[in-house]
Amino acid sequence: MSEEKQVVTMDKIISLCRRRGFIFQSSEIYGGLNGAYDYGPLGVDLKNNIRDFWWKEMTQMHDNIVGLDASILMHPRVWEASGHVSNFSDPMVDCKVCKSRFRADQIDLNAPCPVCGNKDSFTEPRNFNLMFETHIGANKDSASVVYLRPETAQGIYVDFKNVLQSSRVKIPFGIAQVGKSFRNEITTKNFIFRSCEFEQMEMQFFCKPGTEDEWFPYWREQRMNFYKKMGIHPEHLRWHQHGPDELAFYAKDAYDIQFLFPMGWQELEGVHSRTNYDLTQHEKFSGKDLTYLDPETNERYIPFVVETSAGLTRNVLMALSDAYDEEKTPEGDVRTVLHFHPQIAPVKVAVLPLVKKDGIAEYASKLEHSLREDFVTFYDQSGAVGRRYRRMDEIGTPYCITVDYQTLEDHTVTVRFRDSMQQERVAVDQIVPFIKNAMKNYKRV
Amino acid sequence: MSEEKQVVTMDKIISLCRRRGFIFQSSEIYGGLNGAYDYGPLGVDLKNNIRDFWWKEMTQMHDNIVGLDASILMHPRVWEASGHVSNFSDPMVDCKVCKSRFRADQIDLNAPCPVCGNKDSFTEPRNFNLMFETHIGANKDSASVVYLRPETAQGIYVDFKNVLQSSRVKIPFGIAQVGKSFRNEITTKNFIFRSCEFEQMEMQFFCKPGTEDEWFPYWREQRMNFYKKMGIHPEHLRWHQHGPDELAFYAKDAYDIQFLFPMGWQELEGVHSRTNYDLTQHEKFSGKDLTYLDPETNERYIPFVVETSAGLTRNVLMALSDAYDEEKTPEGDVRTVLHFHPQIAPVKVAVLPLVKKDGIAEYASKLEHSLREDFVTFYDQSGAVGRRYRRMDEIGTPYCITVDYQTLEDHTVTVRFRDSMQQERVAVDQIVPFIKNAMKNYKRV
Repeated sequence: MSEEKQVVTMDKIISLCRRRGFIFQSSEIYGGLNGAYDYGPLGVDLKNNIRDFWWKEMTQMHDNIVGLDASILMHPRVWEASGHVSNFSDPMVDCKVCKSRFRADQIDLNAPCPVCGNKDSFTEPRNFNLMFETHIGANKDSASVVYLRPETAQGIYVDFKNVLQSSRVKIPFGIAQVGKSFRNEITTKNFIFRSCEFEQMEMQFFCKPGTEDEWFPYWREQRMNFYKKMGIHPEHLRWHQHGPDELAFYAKDAYDIQFLFPMGWQELEGVHSRTNYDLTQHEKFSGKDLTYLDPETNERYIPFVVETSAGLTRNVLMALSDAYDEEKTPEGDVRTVLHFHPQIAPVKVAVLPLVKKDGIAEYASKLEHSLREDFVTFYDQSGAVGRRYRRMDEIGTPYCITVDYQTLEDHTVTVRFRDSMQQERVAVDQIVPFIKNAMKNYKRV
Repeated sequence: MSEEKQVVTMDKIISLCRRRGFIFQSSEIYGGLNGAYDYGPLGVDLKNNIRDFWWKEMTQMHDNIVGLDASILMHPRVWEASGHVSNFSDPMVDCKVCKSRFRADQIDLNAPCPVCGNKDSFTEPRNFNLMFETHIGANKDSASVVYLRPETAQGIYVDFKNVLQSSRVKIPFGIAQVGKSFRNEITTKNFIFRSCEFEQMEMQFFCKPGTEDEWFPYWREQRMNFYKKMGIHPEHLRWHQHGPDELAFYAKDAYDIQFLFPMGWQELEGVHSRTNYDLTQHEKFSGKDLTYLDPETNERYIPFVVETSAGLTRNVLMALSDAYDEEKTPEGDVRTVLHFHPQIAPVKVAVLPLVKKDGIAEYASKLEHSLREDFVTFYDQSGAVGRRYRRMDEIGTPYCITVDYQTLEDHTVTVRFRDSMQQERVAVDQIVPFIKNAMKNYKRV
């Protein structure tokens, strides 16, 4: 693993994802739907494990953060208040000759059309809103227009008062949410990095005006630590502070956590000091009082917000890219291995009978069943055991348990560790605590 | 709790959900969005716990079932193949005088308009498709029409071959999926029971033609047992077999699990023997070979499907309705209590210092922190301890731990059980296994 460079290319990731059932193109048998992806058997568990890790870390383990799951379809006024109806757009140009469409900020408007090669063929740039629009109710008039939310954060602001009134939380407190968002991206690219349908993990932390400069560094540190806990290489993570040209007009400060993806450094998560802009807008547009009454000082104020906004979909791509390696084995061949942190590995334990005969397969199968309550397991009895280890390496299974002839005599098995390929003999009745302990104390080499 | 009747009314559920932060109307500060709901701090954990219970039961614990998470936006041909474009519609009529709109099958077309009272004012019934439509890409032409999926099942069929090729599954096997679906229901009603945005938990079990009549009763039994494991009253559950007028033309047999909701017996889950209809349709519309090559007999066939299709949203309503009770206490007042199975209760353990002074609050707070790794906890130090118990009863917290003066001396606490209101003295260093054990052996009285 190199210091400042991923060994992995996007092509290798895509190929592995497809071959082993992590991620497929949506509707592939119909030629695919651009910008939409399906998570296969391994991908869905990888994604869920990252989601659950975030959710537990942010809500269960943390003081004063509660969860929320707002609907994807919301009242259209929400997006007027947030500014998305008027501002959430990309400038587009068409080629008048070949009708191809481009983002005006991504091509040179003085150059020939990159598709047909004609010169001076572009229309004037026009703004194209990225929100998907649909209609609710039986009428297709403008009163019934609703949008698929382009971000989860607004659901948190809109429910701020409901949460406050029902949950006895006191400022400072946070509201966390995981869910899908949709953006009609014209140029989707880099696999799941930028897609039309994606998942976010967002938390809005509401604090007293004037204290946001204490909470902002606190949350920056917390969020960076999260990725280190997940076992991501620290040298593949860095901060990027928004410059004056990037900062939203209402934002006080903003940092992105960038990850070294196969295509380079790109945003993984934003930690933004957003002032009281969103709540103030919703107070204005809804006409509802969204102030907080401080029970200690009796002051009324609209809280300031520090937001942590991570892409779950991007987290999946990060986990795959960071875990991927091709390693020379002592035997001289190359193994492909995903060094997932055991917490996020889709399969935790594989159980492999050394041979099928003499009751060894039955023993192994029974053992595998007994482990299901505690772990996601996989049973594999076909092929040489070395090849079975390789198959498990390739999907990132941290522990392989092999049942052999000795097992029948003394009820011990070998536990083989994915990263070191070392093996250890363990008593069958100690397997559950042994694996749990190994997971807890896992350190990536 | 009565035998064949819920004590609870829908109004009581809605009021509790709002008051304690289970469920809010979407976009409430903007007057609400009809048919869309937000899950507050307690609701999201209740919903996630049911989801995770289903997911573990269906994938982790079960032989030969793998997971999937297909995208909500799919290629539009999917819905032509499935029949949704041509058939997934309700007949609608308008009143020509007052412009009100009704489902033709829900009103008497010969009676006066229920809104304005005029006679003979209805238009002819017209079909109204329930799929939400939107456009992908920058052009609003018909080529770019996509739908929000009205069910999750089709994603499973469309990915059948991908899963088969990447996951080494052999027939019989199942694919399980949890996710959002959307239906533009004209008459949403009964709170979250019928909403425009909802969640499903579906599993398609692929088997050899001719074996479906073995798997169909197997899955009926499995699915009914699931609800009993979740602690639902068996007398609130029943089977309803589809009659000839209800059965889809391609279906071989179909049973619904009904639950006694506050508004009466209604469908909670369908277990349907769907033949090879869907895969055959997708083979026809996609032109791709969707047959399975049986490795033992070398036969090629399109597998038959037994589907289990449950509403996660309806499961939440079921869990609330079934758990709700108003009980006379020995002291003569009435307590509202949610008898959730501990597995799905949003908060597992509350830690309550008897008084705040003398270091008792500090002790309790420290204890609460130490339990977070294992349980979703809640710390509450305000008000009389009896009132704090009531607040926990109302949200279904199964275990309350009280720290008192004796705790300071001998490091024991009382554990108070929600259902029986009995208390037991337990050593602090035994609390985690004690609670885990109580959860495992929980039986609703």
